[in-house]
Amino acid sequence: MAVGPDTFPVMHPVKGFSLGVTRAYVRKPDRRDVVVMQAAAGSTLAGAFTTNAFCAAPVQVCRQHLREGVEQLSQAWYLVTNTGYANAGTGAAGMEDCLAVCEALANETKVDINHILPFSTGVIGERLPVPRVVAGLPACIANLSEEGWGEAALGIMTTDTRPKGASVQLSLGGKTVTITGIAKGAGMIRPNMATMLSYVATDAAIDTVLLQTLIREAVELSFNRATVDGDTSTNDACVVVATGQSGFAVKEGAEGFDAFRAALCQVLVELAQAVVKDGEGATKFVTVRVEGALSVAEAKEVAFTVAHSPLVKTALFASDPNWGRILAAVGRAQVDQLDVEKVYLHLDDVLVAEKGGLSPQYKEAQGAAVMQKEAFTIRLSLGRGDANADIWTTDFSYDYVKINADYRS
Amino acid sequence: MAVGPDTFPVMHPVKGFSLGVTRAYVRKPDRRDVVVMQAAAGSTLAGAFTTNAFCAAPVQVCRQHLREGVEQLSQAWYLVTNTGYANAGTGAAGMEDCLAVCEALANETKVDINHILPFSTGVIGERLPVPRVVAGLPACIANLSEEGWGEAALGIMTTDTRPKGASVQLSLGGKTVTITGIAKGAGMIRPNMATMLSYVATDAAIDTVLLQTLIREAVELSFNRATVDGDTSTNDACVVVATGQSGFAVKEGAEGFDAFRAALCQVLVELAQAVVKDGEGATKFVTVRVEGALSVAEAKEVAFTVAHSPLVKTALFASDPNWGRILAAVGRAQVDQLDVEKVYLHLDDVLVAEKGGLSPQYKEAQGAAVMQKEAFTIRLSLGRGDANADIWTTDFSYDYVKINADYRS
Repeated sequence: MAVGPDTFPVMHPVKGFSLGVTRAYVRKPDRRDVVVMQAAAGSTLAGAFTTNAFCAAPVQVCRQHLREGVEQLSQAWYLVTNTGYANAGTGAAGMEDCLAVCEALANETKVDINHILPFSTGVIGERLPVPRVVAGLPACIANLSEEGWGEAALGIMTTDTRPKGASVQLSLGGKTVTITGIAKGAGMIRPNMATMLSYVATDAAIDTVLLQTLIREAVELSFNRATVDGDTSTNDACVVVATGQSGFAVKEGAEGFDAFRAALCQVLVELAQAVVKDGEGATKFVTVRVEGALSVAEAKEVAFTVAHSPLVKTALFASDPNWGRILAAVGRAQVDQLDVEKVYLHLDDVLVAEKGGLSPQYKEAQGAAVMQKEAFTIRLSLGRGDANADIWTTDFSYDYVKINADYRS
Repeated sequence: MAVGPDTFPVMHPVKGFSLGVTRAYVRKPDRRDVVVMQAAAGSTLAGAFTTNAFCAAPVQVCRQHLREGVEQLSQAWYLVTNTGYANAGTGAAGMEDCLAVCEALANETKVDINHILPFSTGVIGERLPVPRVVAGLPACIANLSEEGWGEAALGIMTTDTRPKGASVQLSLGGKTVTITGIAKGAGMIRPNMATMLSYVATDAAIDTVLLQTLIREAVELSFNRATVDGDTSTNDACVVVATGQSGFAVKEGAEGFDAFRAALCQVLVELAQAVVKDGEGATKFVTVRVEGALSVAEAKEVAFTVAHSPLVKTALFASDPNWGRILAAVGRAQVDQLDVEKVYLHLDDVLVAEKGGLSPQYKEAQGAAVMQKEAFTIRLSLGRGDANADIWTTDFSYDYVKINADYRS
């Protein structure tokens, strides 16, 4: 199940960034399961990774290689992704396995090992079958292509029901600048078939420090606001590559900076929303918008408390405008001295509750009409300050339980 | 569905505390739905209430009356509970309704209104039908009896599948001291059929300040460690009454103090565990024990993160020893600088994971055997310090979704 139409966008190629895919039989027969991406020499890279303390070996290696490799601008970078095995919860052996894949790819491509970034997604706690992954590398390299985005979006899927991509072009300083990206994940919720992964490339030139700032900011406004059930995975990773081959350079405060920043954020938001829409068992795509908070952190705290409430989520599944459950979740959020008299609850534009109780003009049929929709907004106004936050979530359905209870059987 | 045998214990009467029940047709036909309890003059009382900002009118009134009424030792106290309506999310009208019930009972019993403690449980957001509740009061008063615990345990139920009681007697200073209590709630998770309610009485004499300290401590070790899904209700309340009629006085540091404190805690723990075992859709009763934390707060943070993880809960339902989901939940808990190399995971006595990965001697069949049981312990050792905490939780089943998605339909 997934929410909304299954349409894959036109993916504009990014000059200097190519993608190659193969069927390597890593875990399942006849499935694209190894993907190699190449960022041309001179590219800058930045990444954002899971905060889970049990992060996977490839996440640890990615972080280290990004730090170490930043100075060698004369070398290309290679990103290698396998599905089937997350290589998380595998201890010291998992680290050896991860480095063995990196070393094999470094040998094939004649770059230093710290220009290899590894990514794994799949079952936690089982050893990565290194020979099978390595055997797939030459085929991936052979079909590296700037047109490979669509194939790669399929190649990184696990239990995703659809590929996820986003692509924008904008004219900056007389140049056409492209930002294109793909993602996988059916929620943030993959401790087993673990991982949300996202790869974004642009042909703008951006120095590493600024790129890191921009990716951190964009991830905060996109993936960090998407939740299916709050179970942060062990392998989450988002990497952005800037090849510089459009001839346009992004510089803070300079012409085109704001437009580029907004466009990068838009690509990540589209990918994050696509992940939520493909959430496990999802039948609804719901925006929780909290306004009038004292801080963005407070707005997010309230929004996530509502979004993670199993009682709210089951009510969403039932299309039940059960406003009492929403207010009860707001009431238990960690907000100091919340004045319930100042809280307003809207479902889309329907005022449901105010002053600690039901709004006098509210009629249940109005709320029910909104909740019947596949996508709508729960809007909460706290009356405390000027900070707002939007987050996106899904419902809890029978299928959610089924998918996650049946997973290993 | 509920976990374990449906056995109601022998309930020892508490001298000076009596209970009366009636069918008042508050919401449903032919159901015991109004309960009055009487604490004899000279009793001391203390309570612990929900921290939900959207707390119900009766919770606000209880708090105020407990504060105001404490000096009038010459008057009896009356506790009145209705089911069917939570009187939460009802704004100013809800407060008027609550006070109207209090006033009616005060008139019937000739006590000041601040010796009336009101409790409501049921649907949020609908007005309390005051005349029906008030009409039931004389019948409740007429059948007040120290033997009324069992009837009252039935009278406070809503969607509970079984009554919940606990009772202990101990010999202190040559006197037989009794502590008896009842509770309702099928989880902490009732924002709609809202509420966990608990009433405990003892015939020991305890001054109000010490009683408040003891109840706060016991609630922290019992109800505050029970969770079905973390949705704190708007009406949660636990009240303890000390009638003093056993002739034994509890004094801090004096003879029998530790024994009494432990016994009070035991009664509350039994009630809290009974609530979890009757959790919505529950098929398992699971203790999450976190050891070796830097503080009890840290141990609870980890334990609750595991207990609230939908992926862990669906694995519990599936009897799947999916240790990767448990470690992933530990890894995302808010613990500063967790060293995963020091984390040990046991299922009952089976060592499952250590040093960031699977234990070499672990066999899946061992974990599967534990998870098949109706009750077991997930034990996590963090290797950081000496603090421990136990909490109790249940699984997420199809029935959980069904009960909560179908609730209002």
